Amino acid sequence: MNILITLNSNYIYPLKVMLKSLFLNNEEETFDIYLMHSSLKTEEVNDIRKYIEKHGSRLHEIRLNNDSFKEAPTLLYYPKEMYYRLLAYKFLPQDMDKILYIDPDVLVLNSIRPLYEMDLTGYFYAAANHDLPSYTEINKIRLSPYEIEAYYNSGILLINLAEQRLNGNENEIYEFIEKNRAKLIMPDQDLMNALYAKKIKSLDEKLYNYDARRYRYYRIVTNGKCNMDYIINNTVMLHFCGKRKPWLNTYNGKFQSLYKHYEKLAKKY
Amino acid sequence: MNILITLNSNYIYPLKVMLKSLFLNNEEETFDIYLMHSSLKTEEVNDIRKYIEKHGSRLHEIRLNNDSFKEAPTLLYYPKEMYYRLLAYKFLPQDMDKILYIDPDVLVLNSIRPLYEMDLTGYFYAAANHDLPSYTEINKIRLSPYEIEAYYNSGILLINLAEQRLNGNENEIYEFIEKNRAKLIMPDQDLMNALYAKKIKSLDEKLYNYDARRYRYYRIVTNGKCNMDYIINNTVMLHFCGKRKPWLNTYNGKFQSLYKHYEKLAKKY
Repeated sequence: MNILITLNSNYIYPLKVMLKSLFLNNEEETFDIYLMHSSLKTEEVNDIRKYIEKHGSRLHEIRLNNDSFKEAPTLLYYPKEMYYRLLAYKFLPQDMDKILYIDPDVLVLNSIRPLYEMDLTGYFYAAANHDLPSYTEINKIRLSPYEIEAYYNSGILLINLAEQRLNGNENEIYEFIEKNRAKLIMPDQDLMNALYAKKIKSLDEKLYNYDARRYRYYRIVTNGKCNMDYIINNTVMLHFCGKRKPWLNTYNGKFQSLYKHYEKLAKKY
Repeated sequence: MNILITLNSNYIYPLKVMLKSLFLNNEEETFDIYLMHSSLKTEEVNDIRKYIEKHGSRLHEIRLNNDSFKEAPTLLYYPKEMYYRLLAYKFLPQDMDKILYIDPDVLVLNSIRPLYEMDLTGYFYAAANHDLPSYTEINKIRLSPYEIEAYYNSGILLINLAEQRLNGNENEIYEFIEKNRAKLIMPDQDLMNALYAKKIKSLDEKLYNYDARRYRYYRIVTNGKCNMDYIINNTVMLHFCGKRKPWLNTYNGKFQSLYKHYEKLAKKY
């Protein structure tokens, strides 16, 4: 299975925790992990490589620089990394059909195979909408006149590379950024939602992009079904969205003990 | 290492979770697990045996019945099981020096070897006091005229069998029960505290009998040192004291996600 990761050195630590959880809960799989980055040191990449190989998988480094996005407009507060997920198909092997992007602030709790094998015919992405009505409404207004039904989170993305090579349009992306620079908050996520609203296959967020801040919410809207037992046994991607990250001492959320457990295992080997 | 467990059929499920955590976090060890019971069915014992053997350890069954405690006084609300930990030395192999008793409502998070190898010369037990001042005071008053400094929890006990064979006194135990029947709340724990106050070596509860209900308390009294990171990396025994057990749906505590994680692993194999 192909996994895409993108990061800078601040995220090496949580990346290892994410990978540890991926490996432990997908023991029968091996992974080809593509690391797109522009700023990691050689020894940092080697450290990640060693970690991945110890677990029986492979790392493929894709080092990018500013030349890689020559024609791309820049935004004051956002580095060119914002284009990585959108244009991954340009930099990955040209015969690769699909890849699963996972943020480093995720714990993988169960098998990713059902997600990976999902039929994506005609779609660019599969992603989950964090469905808080007010949040979706604000983003609908913010991104108008682009019409969106849902605002998808780009932290976990199954990417249909073959379809993007056929029907993707790099210039359309650059034009969108130019034109909307004033109102972009999370440029890549905004763009994906605004330009590709109809090209995103919707995933169940409780399974594939569970927002770890919203335990009570999920439990209530499912009449109690989505309790801790359900999550541990069914949720595939537990996503630590927001500023309060579980590897920081200030974190105090529902999944703290679980995260620390994986963190300990990640440090062990 | 010798491990002592005692249970009835209601505790088979959490027992497996406890054992799973013991095995996973003590991978380099094998265990001789002694099961003292009076009511389990043969197929239940076989199921536990199979589970333990799959993990490379051994089960030794010690089936007891009322004849095993012929001279022991009975109490209305407490079965004879209350004598198991106190008189284990009578029923275990006579050349066994020590054994570690662990309640089934425990998660073992780190290596038990430092505890197991603790010097117990001159002591009957090593145990931890759940040191809430008010709680200790109440028990001091309740158990007077017996003089106690601390009220030890008997859920996790390192037992010095050799010393008990030499200096233990079965009749003293029975007399104590007879004489104090009216004021006993947890007979075996009460007895251990009242009769053997000076024969108990005190353990650090944060390491060896962490009361899972009291996360905030431990953090505060240690000026923040005993945070989640400390617990996951140092605490050996996490004890789910009290009525709200983490395998029940009503549980909602700090360690819920961690417990459910081990529960899932225990169900897997």
